[in-house]
Amino acid sequence: MPTPTGVGTEELRRANLRAILQTVHTLGPTTRAVLTKQLGLNRSTIGALTGELQSLGLVTEQTAVVGGRGRPSHLVVPSEDNVVVAVDVGVDRIAVALVGLGGEVLDRRTRGHQRGEHDVAHVVESVAQMIEETLAASSGHLRCLGVGVAVPGAVRAEDGMVRFAPNLGWVEEPFTELLSTRLDRPVSTGNDANLGVLAEHVRGAAVGFSDVAYLSASVGIGGGFLVGGRPLTGASGYAGEVGHMQVDGTGPDCRCGAVGCWETKVGENVLLQRAGRLAGGGPEAVAEVIAAARAGEPRAAEAVNDVADWCGVGIRAIVNLFNPEVVVLGGSLAQVWRAAEARVVDSVQRNTLLSPRGDAALRSAALGDDSPLIGAAELAFGPVLDHPQAVPQAV
Amino acid sequence: MPTPTGVGTEELRRANLRAILQTVHTLGPTTRAVLTKQLGLNRSTIGALTGELQSLGLVTEQTAVVGGRGRPSHLVVPSEDNVVVAVDVGVDRIAVALVGLGGEVLDRRTRGHQRGEHDVAHVVESVAQMIEETLAASSGHLRCLGVGVAVPGAVRAEDGMVRFAPNLGWVEEPFTELLSTRLDRPVSTGNDANLGVLAEHVRGAAVGFSDVAYLSASVGIGGGFLVGGRPLTGASGYAGEVGHMQVDGTGPDCRCGAVGCWETKVGENVLLQRAGRLAGGGPEAVAEVIAAARAGEPRAAEAVNDVADWCGVGIRAIVNLFNPEVVVLGGSLAQVWRAAEARVVDSVQRNTLLSPRGDAALRSAALGDDSPLIGAAELAFGPVLDHPQAVPQAV
Repeated sequence: MPTPTGVGTEELRRANLRAILQTVHTLGPTTRAVLTKQLGLNRSTIGALTGELQSLGLVTEQTAVVGGRGRPSHLVVPSEDNVVVAVDVGVDRIAVALVGLGGEVLDRRTRGHQRGEHDVAHVVESVAQMIEETLAASSGHLRCLGVGVAVPGAVRAEDGMVRFAPNLGWVEEPFTELLSTRLDRPVSTGNDANLGVLAEHVRGAAVGFSDVAYLSASVGIGGGFLVGGRPLTGASGYAGEVGHMQVDGTGPDCRCGAVGCWETKVGENVLLQRAGRLAGGGPEAVAEVIAAARAGEPRAAEAVNDVADWCGVGIRAIVNLFNPEVVVLGGSLAQVWRAAEARVVDSVQRNTLLSPRGDAALRSAALGDDSPLIGAAELAFGPVLDHPQAVPQAV
Repeated sequence: MPTPTGVGTEELRRANLRAILQTVHTLGPTTRAVLTKQLGLNRSTIGALTGELQSLGLVTEQTAVVGGRGRPSHLVVPSEDNVVVAVDVGVDRIAVALVGLGGEVLDRRTRGHQRGEHDVAHVVESVAQMIEETLAASSGHLRCLGVGVAVPGAVRAEDGMVRFAPNLGWVEEPFTELLSTRLDRPVSTGNDANLGVLAEHVRGAAVGFSDVAYLSASVGIGGGFLVGGRPLTGASGYAGEVGHMQVDGTGPDCRCGAVGCWETKVGENVLLQRAGRLAGGGPEAVAEVIAAARAGEPRAAEAVNDVADWCGVGIRAIVNLFNPEVVVLGGSLAQVWRAAEARVVDSVQRNTLLSPRGDAALRSAALGDDSPLIGAAELAFGPVLDHPQAVPQAV
């Protein structure tokens, strides 16, 4: 039960401003009539509020002729002069995108890590350079509202300290502070899977769903959750560590110190090694194994089936714990699921005697590998969407 | 992200009424001065709102002399003339309590099932009789606001249909509708572990925490969660099914159709059978095994240690997934934890290489076996706490 607090009228106004801005950011250009209906406010209130957003430079109003009867309608349009820079720090590459209010990707670049190194100083420098290039290439009148970064690790909510990002070899790295100092701009950092589920919810395979599990595997497995429409963060921002549920008491040993973690049974390298391939080939190598399995190579087929069974074991635990409407699969989980859908579903449904559970739909991520990147943009838009009046006036 | 909606002034007033009533229900008698401070509203607003609550018969105001300076203070007191009936349908017994606004248990009775039967018609009749006896024994001027029931099973949120309660042998039983019809009163039903976490949050071991896992074992294991201060229900009310996470790929077979579920490794009967006792002895038999282990009986000691290790495996998965501030243990999980705390903690912390996670405190349930019962009372108080103005005027 949240602590009850009183609500004043200024707060009310801010809530309504926020509601309008969030709506046009999410849906794109929206008529005043739709806003009036959707928010349950009267027309003059909507007019005053959109006027204020316009004077803040966050929206423009256009008069459009909509529908057959030719009546002109005021269209409230998110202003793409407001942008954020989104960054996804992956194990293999860094992706940087310029994203406008309303969610459109205006520019985007990708680069491998410098000499393949994950040293935090190198990563900060690479990211900073890519951001500067991106902003330099953009037209001059843009207002950059912030920088959002996705990292594959546990991030402390208060200050963006990266507590542990095993696949980058980071422990207690003040990445966010370093990047913010280097850029002289505020930076927000989040866990890649938490940002992935956010993006899939706002613009992907989970639009319209409030209870969502996003599970994405590459080397490790990331989990991001929406619970009743809100992101699951946990007390300190570490929730969603799905890879280290024990699924087998007999092993194998996991790098975390325990045995039989889900991550030791699924994931890119597990599949590759079971199929007799070298670890480290990434999504392309996984695709090759799946193609070989389809072409009849027994060892590849066995590997795909085995990993599909274990995918189902973990998804089943998640479905039982969270009762989501939809489970969105990313990375190699999506690859295996598309290759062996029936087998994964069989494994998920193995405890059918348990209960007539609500059906959770399984889907591939609609934003593909970009979910965390788009989620990082949403993270960076967060402050202005929460407090439109606090938008910086300098461009 | 919740769908943004506009907020009107009538809604604002209702929110403030609600905030005051929830505060005095949770904290007990509270001075106007504290309410003013806590809710951030001015004194005259608080006065008007408590006046309205008083005219609705939900609170009384008393003038008390508080503190050393002898200044009289208006004390807002929840009126215990408003009661609910709380019911906990267990496998062995039914408990019924009369609970006043403010949370005090005014009366309470417990009875075994009729001829040990769980047939839904028998259970409905037993519960109804116990409720009628409870209300008949109470003083005449009470206003009964509702009936709340805890059941050990999956409950559909919309209508209280009990989808599956394996330890009662129920599948798709319209228990709530049957009881409501029999009593001619509204009845709300919830899962016992979901209600347990609610009670521990409002009045038990999890007061002040927003991210809480409540895990309680008897024959099966129930899980109830608070996530960011809100109950985890899942899309259809089935979330928190912790007993059927697979923790061992090699078995044993579980009654759910799968193998190696957590429930096959912990729980009363698992402990009893591993210690060479007969299943079915309940908490007393578990206590006997723990005493025997302490006295040096090797088989009992081995059973306790083994179950303690497996308790830790499941708790570890929950800690990794939810990152709770506190894990509240009930039933035989609490018994085993108190008997072998160091061993459970060792097992929970087995993946120390994973990350410096936020510390989750492990605790026994403060309300003991009453957590679901007290949670059922909170469920029944829910409508009036949400909409104080909609309180029925008839006593």
